[in-house]
Amino acid sequence: MVDEDERRAWAYLAGVAEPPCAALRTLITEVGITEAARAVAGRSMPSGHAEVLRATEARHGVNTSAEDLDAAARVGGRLVTPDDDEWPGWQLLALSKADTSAKGGEPLALWMRGPVQFDQAVDRSIAIVGSRAASGYGEHVTATISSGLVAENWSVVSGGAYGIDGVAHRNVLASGGVTVAVLACGIDRDYPSGHARLLSEIARTGLVVSEYAPGTTAAKHRFLTRNRLVAALSSAVVVVEAGQRSGAANTAAWARKLGTPLGAVPGPVTSATSVGCHRMIADGVAHLVTDSADILRLARPGGEDVQRSTGSRERPTDNLDANQLRVYDTVPATGTLTIGEISFACGLELRQVRSALAVLEARGMLSTDGSGWSLARGR
Amino acid sequence: MVDEDERRAWAYLAGVAEPPCAALRTLITEVGITEAARAVAGRSMPSGHAEVLRATEARHGVNTSAEDLDAAARVGGRLVTPDDDEWPGWQLLALSKADTSAKGGEPLALWMRGPVQFDQAVDRSIAIVGSRAASGYGEHVTATISSGLVAENWSVVSGGAYGIDGVAHRNVLASGGVTVAVLACGIDRDYPSGHARLLSEIARTGLVVSEYAPGTTAAKHRFLTRNRLVAALSSAVVVVEAGQRSGAANTAAWARKLGTPLGAVPGPVTSATSVGCHRMIADGVAHLVTDSADILRLARPGGEDVQRSTGSRERPTDNLDANQLRVYDTVPATGTLTIGEISFACGLELRQVRSALAVLEARGMLSTDGSGWSLARGR
Repeated sequence: MVDEDERRAWAYLAGVAEPPCAALRTLITEVGITEAARAVAGRSMPSGHAEVLRATEARHGVNTSAEDLDAAARVGGRLVTPDDDEWPGWQLLALSKADTSAKGGEPLALWMRGPVQFDQAVDRSIAIVGSRAASGYGEHVTATISSGLVAENWSVVSGGAYGIDGVAHRNVLASGGVTVAVLACGIDRDYPSGHARLLSEIARTGLVVSEYAPGTTAAKHRFLTRNRLVAALSSAVVVVEAGQRSGAANTAAWARKLGTPLGAVPGPVTSATSVGCHRMIADGVAHLVTDSADILRLARPGGEDVQRSTGSRERPTDNLDANQLRVYDTVPATGTLTIGEISFACGLELRQVRSALAVLEARGMLSTDGSGWSLARGR
Repeated sequence: MVDEDERRAWAYLAGVAEPPCAALRTLITEVGITEAARAVAGRSMPSGHAEVLRATEARHGVNTSAEDLDAAARVGGRLVTPDDDEWPGWQLLALSKADTSAKGGEPLALWMRGPVQFDQAVDRSIAIVGSRAASGYGEHVTATISSGLVAENWSVVSGGAYGIDGVAHRNVLASGGVTVAVLACGIDRDYPSGHARLLSEIARTGLVVSEYAPGTTAAKHRFLTRNRLVAALSSAVVVVEAGQRSGAANTAAWARKLGTPLGAVPGPVTSATSVGCHRMIADGVAHLVTDSADILRLARPGGEDVQRSTGSRERPTDNLDANQLRVYDTVPATGTLTIGEISFACGLELRQVRSALAVLEARGMLSTDGSGWSLARGR
């Protein structure tokens, strides 16, 4: 359990440096949350933590933690910290192992709105991301994949943006599944504004998550930082559509860095919104995926058995050897051929033709009237 | 030079066993064409060549070589043998190294119609193959790729079939290039019948090629055998569209066996005619290609320089470091911010903001009125 003072300390430190701030995380681990907050506010840092002083210089004097917690509460939100049971520690661990420079690192704490336990929401989750300028094709594929994942009891993580993100969230909601929107602004902000209603729908049954305090506005660097969380919180990342330059490429890069399996959906080569997907596949960076079954195979290799989506049906000719096939193909669609005619036509010896005919007759593929051979009726 | 008797011997042996027949090829190499023909017709085989007796049992008594050569001549055709200058020996060599079983092996000789020297037609050539039931999308992509290859002085090899094959041939003709149709029947047969005119157009400026004597009808095993020639005669094989089960998959398998680079064009995952292509790419069997430039890069890796088709344009923000980018992104589209406001908004120290602003101003990306900073006009 986290008491109120501690949670306020978390709220203060979560915003006092622009996330992610690995140095601050290290300080908290070393001296505890309360002491860390005191050190930052009082500018008296234990030795070896000068980096924290630098990172918090701009904002240390403004402690809005109480207001932030209030603002979150007003929209039914909460701050989840590593000390809370629902913190998905093992999933976020990859972040602390990856690049801990300016761009990476585990989040200190996360703000969220929604009735679902955070760790449960992301336990079996797939990130679906893509172009804001999605095509009708991309939207259709996103809808099909999202519903397919829900049917298999997986949740869907995305960024709440227009285009692919929005279609993914919307279809999960429509399918009765759990969806998680990770925002690059505060959980109380409707960004993009056209998604105000969608975000509140998500918050009603799933989770709206952010590393940024309530009220924080979206900024480009925050989208990039947010993308690492999308990749970290998912068992696989799927890019449905991405243009030449796309935010999805950044999420994909995070997936690679974190070791999260990455899939990309192909599309028409004539479509500008598939260029990024094709590039990732051609460069061997992403796996080509066509449906939810492909994606789940990526997410749990060797795990639960998933029927291969492009599995093939059996055909009567499948188990014929080369000679049998050649003889079978030689017999015309209508009319009959003698054994001698078949032998000449297909270039096999009489002996070989005879042996092949015996098999083909036994399988009910060819029939004979005593002199000539024809295709068996009903085939 | 091949004299008339020798050519007749080649014509006889080319048809006396169903191609390909590696044993017959070995016999010819060992004893010469004239002696080999005499041995097959007279059933007196040098020791170690019993296999040839078996392979030629069905047809050895029927020598239609003179008629075959006449039939070829009537449609302006010829029989090209390994003794002719235009035999593309080095390209067909891969076949003799590959599986020499019932399915593989070098052709003994090839019948062809058309004004182009065979070796020249296939010196710089790409095979374009695909579904007979091509979609409008597949036809469009085939047309674009074919024209692109002609523009780079490459010829296009295909199978003369409906669908992708036909569109490829037709677009090469329309672009004034050389195209080669490799048939699974005699060069004097219009198969498929709807391509009678197309085939004669190809024979007027390119080549119609077949391993089968004039008059031979198409049969399923001949399509499979023909496919190996398509793969062998090309510097790369590209599958534009292929369904779950497709002849193109067989050509693709030959390409892999022969070491011919293999490309596949992606398409909508909703399209049944792209399933085979996606499967080949997903299985790592084919490279994803989107246009003729991608294909030529496959055909000549490290060779002539080809501009990457998905190359990216430079953007003003490309060369900014992380802090500069963060500051730049913090400045709003309209209005100004003071250095202090920027520092607070983006979480960087004043010192870091100042140094970033200096660079951004020098690059003409931001401007200042002395107190506040805004985006430079005209950006």
